[in-house]
Amino acid sequence: MCIMATEAPKLAIDRKWYCSYEQVHRLVQSMAPKIKAEFKPDVIVGIGTGGFVPARILRSYLGVPFMTVSLRLYNDATNTAEEKIVKTQWFDDNCDPWKTLHGRNVLIVDEIDDSRRTLQYCAEQIIADYGPAKVGIMVVHNKLKEKHGTIPDGVSYFCGQDIPGDAWLVYPWESQDIDDHYSLLYVGSDKE
Amino acid sequence: MCIMATEAPKLAIDRKWYCSYEQVHRLVQSMAPKIKAEFKPDVIVGIGTGGFVPARILRSYLGVPFMTVSLRLYNDATNTAEEKIVKTQWFDDNCDPWKTLHGRNVLIVDEIDDSRRTLQYCAEQIIADYGPAKVGIMVVHNKLKEKHGTIPDGVSYFCGQDIPGDAWLVYPWESQDIDDHYSLLYVGSDKE
Repeated sequence: MCIMATEAPKLAIDRKWYCSYEQVHRLVQSMAPKIKAEFKPDVIVGIGTGGFVPARILRSYLGVPFMTVSLRLYNDATNTAEEKIVKTQWFDDNCDPWKTLHGRNVLIVDEIDDSRRTLQYCAEQIIADYGPAKVGIMVVHNKLKEKHGTIPDGVSYFCGQDIPGDAWLVYPWESQDIDDHYSLLYVGSDKE
Repeated sequence: MCIMATEAPKLAIDRKWYCSYEQVHRLVQSMAPKIKAEFKPDVIVGIGTGGFVPARILRSYLGVPFMTVSLRLYNDATNTAEEKIVKTQWFDDNCDPWKTLHGRNVLIVDEIDDSRRTLQYCAEQIIADYGPAKVGIMVVHNKLKEKHGTIPDGVSYFCGQDIPGDAWLVYPWESQDIDDHYSLLYVGSDKE
């Protein structure tokens, strides 16, 4: 279940939804006490590259170790219907991942739950390889759409805000011109 | 040399300097064309945890692969004068670091150049282990103070803004309350 937030991303004249850094920060801030109380994370795993900003914000509230992984959805040229997930960066020995993750409460953080496949993959890999005590997933936004992945049994799920399934959401860190981004955000249309 | 920016972090009544997400984004935005033209990065290496947000922003302008490392300054209890740097996360085999870094233009990104020791260490490790074509360093802010590290010969250096050497700078992603952070930023004292 998503926490209701007073601020939502704004549908602009180009039909994309714009959100601000402050909205993302406030959503993470609003989720942090619940996550701390209910899940008690020992370590955060930010999924790159989209999850790095919300994960870094969340770390300020939790004060636990913060590791990163990067995953990429890969379309096999011989079969475009079959998307594969590739680890482009994962835990190295400097992380001491067994010590850091085994028997711990591991919270995976990403910016958006879209198809859910990457989130499922990441949770399953950590569970299979490192035997954590608990795994949780935190996302800033969840698209209300049919999911191709599932949240594995026993994995907690925290989400800041639901958005329409067909929304094209533009995060501020993706912006080529931050002032244009904020202009679209603040003067955007309210029509859906 | 730092690019002159029109907006600077603001000294607040608690004697800390507050900066906004938009200031950080605009500084990265202002540096991106110069970095692209002069350094031509093939890959970004964000230093965690402080460098993750500026590195993620820069990636939107450069569109090149983005890897992360995490370093920690470690005070040996037996000799507190001797700070050691520990890799808490580094490149794993999924990154294929030799292929990704060898003979490439590698840009290291962090939020602040303080003692310069971490930046020196990171540049030297990448040069020694992977033989990149060129290494560059980008920081959002540089503290005007005596440095304990040096920029290795031949390494490019890009910085968004100089700040006083004794400034306690608070980045927005470190904030426990983003609205308090912005209040301090916008109503803060201008006195130095």
